[in-house]
Amino acid sequence: MNKKINKIGVMTSGGDAPGMNAAIRSVVRTCAYHNIECVGIYRGYEGMMEGDFKTLTARSVNHIIHTGGTVLKSARSEEFRTIEGRKKAHSYLIKENIDALVLIGGDGTFTGGLIFNEEFNFPVMGIPGTIDNDIFGTNFTIGYDTAINTVVEAIDKIRDTASSHKRLFFVEVMGRDVGHIALNAGVGAGAEEILIPEEDLGLDRLVESLKRSKASGKSSSIVVVAEGDKIGKNVFELKDYIDENMPEYDVRVTVLGHIQRGGSPTCFDRVLASRMGVKAVESLLDGKSNYMVGILDNKIELTALEKAVKGKTEINLELLRVSDIMTT
Amino acid sequence: MNKKINKIGVMTSGGDAPGMNAAIRSVVRTCAYHNIECVGIYRGYEGMMEGDFKTLTARSVNHIIHTGGTVLKSARSEEFRTIEGRKKAHSYLIKENIDALVLIGGDGTFTGGLIFNEEFNFPVMGIPGTIDNDIFGTNFTIGYDTAINTVVEAIDKIRDTASSHKRLFFVEVMGRDVGHIALNAGVGAGAEEILIPEEDLGLDRLVESLKRSKASGKSSSIVVVAEGDKIGKNVFELKDYIDENMPEYDVRVTVLGHIQRGGSPTCFDRVLASRMGVKAVESLLDGKSNYMVGILDNKIELTALEKAVKGKTEINLELLRVSDIMTT
Amino acid sequence: MNKKINKIGVMTSGGDAPGMNAAIRSVVRTCAYHNIECVGIYRGYEGMMEGDFKTLTARSVNHIIHTGGTVLKSARSEEFRTIEGRKKAHSYLIKENIDALVLIGGDGTFTGGLIFNEEFNFPVMGIPGTIDNDIFGTNFTIGYDTAINTVVEAIDKIRDTASSHKRLFFVEVMGRDVGHIALNAGVGAGAEEILIPEEDLGLDRLVESLKRSKASGKSSSIVVVAEGDKIGKNVFELKDYIDENMPEYDVRVTVLGHIQRGGSPTCFDRVLASRMGVKAVESLLDGKSNYMVGILDNKIELTALEKAVKGKTEINLELLRVSDIMTT
Amino acid sequence: MNKKINKIGVMTSGGDAPGMNAAIRSVVRTCAYHNIECVGIYRGYEGMMEGDFKTLTARSVNHIIHTGGTVLKSARSEEFRTIEGRKKAHSYLIKENIDALVLIGGDGTFTGGLIFNEEFNFPVMGIPGTIDNDIFGTNFTIGYDTAINTVVEAIDKIRDTASSHKRLFFVEVMGRDVGHIALNAGVGAGAEEILIPEEDLGLDRLVESLKRSKASGKSSSIVVVAEGDKIGKNVFELKDYIDENMPEYDVRVTVLGHIQRGGSPTCFDRVLASRMGVKAVESLLDGKSNYMVGILDNKIELTALEKAVKGKTEINLELLRVSDIMTT
Repeated sequence: MNKKINKIGVMTSGGDAPGMNAAIRSVVRTCAYHNIECVGIYRGYEGMMEGDFKTLTARSVNHIIHTGGTVLKSARSEEFRTIEGRKKAHSYLIKENIDALVLIGGDGTFTGGLIFNEEFNFPVMGIPGTIDNDIFGTNFTIGYDTAINTVVEAIDKIRDTASSHKRLFFVEVMGRDVGHIALNAGVGAGAEEILIPEEDLGLDRLVESLKRSKASGKSSSIVVVAEGDKIGKNVFELKDYIDENMPEYDVRVTVLGHIQRGGSPTCFDRVLASRMGVKAVESLLDGKSNYMVGILDNKIELTALEKAVKGKTEINLELLRVSDIMTT
Repeated sequence: MNKKINKIGVMTSGGDAPGMNAAIRSVVRTCAYHNIECVGIYRGYEGMMEGDFKTLTARSVNHIIHTGGTVLKSARSEEFRTIEGRKKAHSYLIKENIDALVLIGGDGTFTGGLIFNEEFNFPVMGIPGTIDNDIFGTNFTIGYDTAINTVVEAIDKIRDTASSHKRLFFVEVMGRDVGHIALNAGVGAGAEEILIPEEDLGLDRLVESLKRSKASGKSSSIVVVAEGDKIGKNVFELKDYIDENMPEYDVRVTVLGHIQRGGSPTCFDRVLASRMGVKAVESLLDGKSNYMVGILDNKIELTALEKAVKGKTEINLELLRVSDIMTT
Repeated sequence: MNKKINKIGVMTSGGDAPGMNAAIRSVVRTCAYHNIECVGIYRGYEGMMEGDFKTLTARSVNHIIHTGGTVLKSARSEEFRTIEGRKKAHSYLIKENIDALVLIGGDGTFTGGLIFNEEFNFPVMGIPGTIDNDIFGTNFTIGYDTAINTVVEAIDKIRDTASSHKRLFFVEVMGRDVGHIALNAGVGAGAEEILIPEEDLGLDRLVESLKRSKASGKSSSIVVVAEGDKIGKNVFELKDYIDENMPEYDVRVTVLGHIQRGGSPTCFDRVLASRMGVKAVESLLDGKSNYMVGILDNKIELTALEKAVKGKTEINLELLRVSDIMTT
Repeated sequence: MNKKINKIGVMTSGGDAPGMNAAIRSVVRTCAYHNIECVGIYRGYEGMMEGDFKTLTARSVNHIIHTGGTVLKSARSEEFRTIEGRKKAHSYLIKENIDALVLIGGDGTFTGGLIFNEEFNFPVMGIPGTIDNDIFGTNFTIGYDTAINTVVEAIDKIRDTASSHKRLFFVEVMGRDVGHIALNAGVGAGAEEILIPEEDLGLDRLVESLKRSKASGKSSSIVVVAEGDKIGKNVFELKDYIDENMPEYDVRVTVLGHIQRGGSPTCFDRVLASRMGVKAVESLLDGKSNYMVGILDNKIELTALEKAVKGKTEINLELLRVSDIMTT
């Protein structure tokens, strides 16, 4: 039988994402609502191994729902990959009387949690927080909606000037292994071409497509490129290639970089984070462990953490087709 | 057997919503993709009865995906409620060789379309465009996501100043019959209280809740009020009541008004509109009629237009509970 | 001869304004740069009378330059208007070894400072922080640029929907005694009419002007109304009057309220606040007192605090004429 | 004696800037106000040499004040540098009965105008439109205020994530020859270091400064780099250098690129453009020629076009010092 849970620890780990603070706030207030204690663990597993803890009350999380980043800081930890590191972390949790953990992050965070649970039978519950939307078991991760809006707003500005001149713009967006940001933001921004890791367009077909776009009467073109697109060239190499093969274009490059990780979260991300925080805490209180909270078909659901870690998300083929039609 | 469709008319009607232009663009480009003609009908049914038409090519809809409002204008029409008005409209459509209609709007727009179809057996397909998110058959209407973000950004600004002083703010948002905007934006903005038409809080319980909020250590409070909240008082009357019953508060009012209908659409609304436009045109080309395109569980689906008009949306009870917990 | 200054107190008072945090940060860091101590005084004169102080180091003000509101909170104080109140405040300052004060606020704040200086010969330096831009001795107050951008962005959204229908919008903006916000934001937003306290247009001329605007081919109109406009009616009464006298218009009202006081400050306000903070501290260190820092013709200059309090700002007549020409 | 002016041509040329549309609108409406005709010349000198003209009425420029880019398009022209090209342009202007020109752009645009005036005695008036703020004779060029806000908003987002991890960010902003954008946006964004073409910091001193910043307790650093900074390395080379010399930092790069040229203009840029447009047209009507309209000490003034072209702007040394103090 499970031990009654009286104190929950919450932490953020891995790459930060807008809405993590809304999730922290939700976890803390749900604990307060159920009259149990909540402890913030700073700098992810790194801080867990150092006992970098702070008690959080409902008032500790005032005025953070709208802020980017994470008030608990985040870090990547090498030491937690060792059994010694995890033992240290466990002893700090025990010392502090923490009974369960809410882990906000991505794949790496959850993998750490799974191993930790296995070794110490310590209840853990995951909340998917990453801008990449690449977690199995949820239609949306916290931060993704904000990121695609950030990209779209940036491209809107580029479009203003693109349409004043005859230009071709390459805009590099995040997504090393997955093209969700590129595809959705590309459609949202009305990009002429979208290069994603899941599809190999090839340089020749890119040039061909750009020529078709020009022939169809478009005076400028915007190409969204995911970091990890299959062509395998970074945007500056793409620029060189087009400079050589389509000299009629004036080619410019924008690398959005970490702009995409920051900013005030959208309403969607705040509401999603609030809902997930409630579910995570109440699932732990119900005696559950080793799950990730997700949103599936607009309902908040649990997925086994192991499935979440092993599963792969897939690119939306219908949207890929919409993208093609829109560039008519 | 259905007549082959060679020319589609598209119009916006009723209250405008951000993303309508993205929907128009999608309808136009999907027509171009399938090599059929597309005609823009200006000012909704009003313009249909006057033959206010313009052929739209793929290039006609360049650079509108990011704009608020509707390039086709919108109107409400009394005359279309008469059989004479509808006959006039029909004769213009026939004269222009228009074979089918895509109607972008809300309940009123769809009702008009249903009657028109019944009388003239004219193929119609609806796309839900309204900020209120009150259409049965779709989890989200075009414009809703933008509207809630507009509200949340406005309240974020108020929160800055609220937390500097001891103040109570009433913020009136749209929603005469439904509280979707108020509930979602209220949760997203971290409002202390949310008054919606679906629930009758009562003035006494409002005062009680505000006192509890103050006792819990909050120095300021924001109350989101849907236009049609059940207490039945407008925000200025609410202010008067609180002025009298909680003189310790300095009460201020903001009426967001039509700010909520405008603005550049979010990525979500643009992608949704793009997907819906494709489905609407291709469904007509497939010989379908009298449906509304909707998004259900992240998939683009059709719902009988009649059901869409008669059905009612419901407030998300889970979210209502989340809202309660968050104000701990 | 003046006593050497070793410790400076800084506070915000009166209505808060975006950029106040940037000013606080600048005061604190300039103190650190000159190796003198800095003490934050919370809740303006109210906190001064209660000894609500906190030492601030260069690191205390990390990550606040971009935030709205004021981290030192603000308040209006009745007690400080009494000699007893001011004595109490003085004794706390002496006890804390504070040698001089930087006061961030408006007229009321500066008047308090002047009296305090006169009674206790205590060095004070003012920084103008108010969205109203109504302080003599500076072309721009901190927060004003942010406020006019907030208004313009709001009206841009209204314009989207206004131009889709035939509508007249009244937008009430702040400015009880001065029309700076209304005039500048009105020109920036392309308003058809701007009602300010400095000018009495009269209802008849308003109707006339709106009719002219309509005759010139405009399908919708936006009227910006300063709270204190000379017509002496609030926006809702204006709506009633137009409803009656121009029934062809569908009239809508937006009351922006405290949205105008919040939000992340613009680059201009942050830079202005940073420059003013440096000047305020260094002027005190130079032995000066009873001045307000201002920006005059793009240079940071001092104005006697007494002049700043007694002087009046004037509406820009050239801009008023530009406004007329723009509505052609 | 000067010929009476009955028709004015307006064009935008060179790199586009937010607020150009507001300037076009102002020129057009000021012409309408004075009952003279206005003709839009498309694609700058390129379109002038092809007679690419369109009559613009007060209504032609509705709903453009808030848009980025330029509705008249812009281009750079080689042919106009030849006397043949200019003769062609002149013959088109004569044919169209255009009596004078308003040229919106930067140095190159004005130089072209000066030569054109000399050769054909054709009245010209310049309006400074460029985001770089590098035109002599005006404190501010149209577009500059918008650009620095765009940069500041981008860095705000990066700061969110920077402060969650231990990171160093290089953000490349525009400014090949001048550091105005980098300096102002750097101060506004609270950057730890600002690299501008006017100053040669040197790589060693950069590393030293970053180490000092870290020692002072800052966990992350943002360095704003103008394209043309004197260190002479592009941001990616800077990253490589720091990767090698400060391995404790995780270094990331953002290249803002043409995002800075677009976007909806700020209130300041719209008002400035409106004022300048009035002055440009009325100066031509007053018989003046060969001037640039500028804003000097908050007043709209004329500067001889020749001086504007030959003069150099200087970096604000007071602000450079403020920047140093702020990084304490």
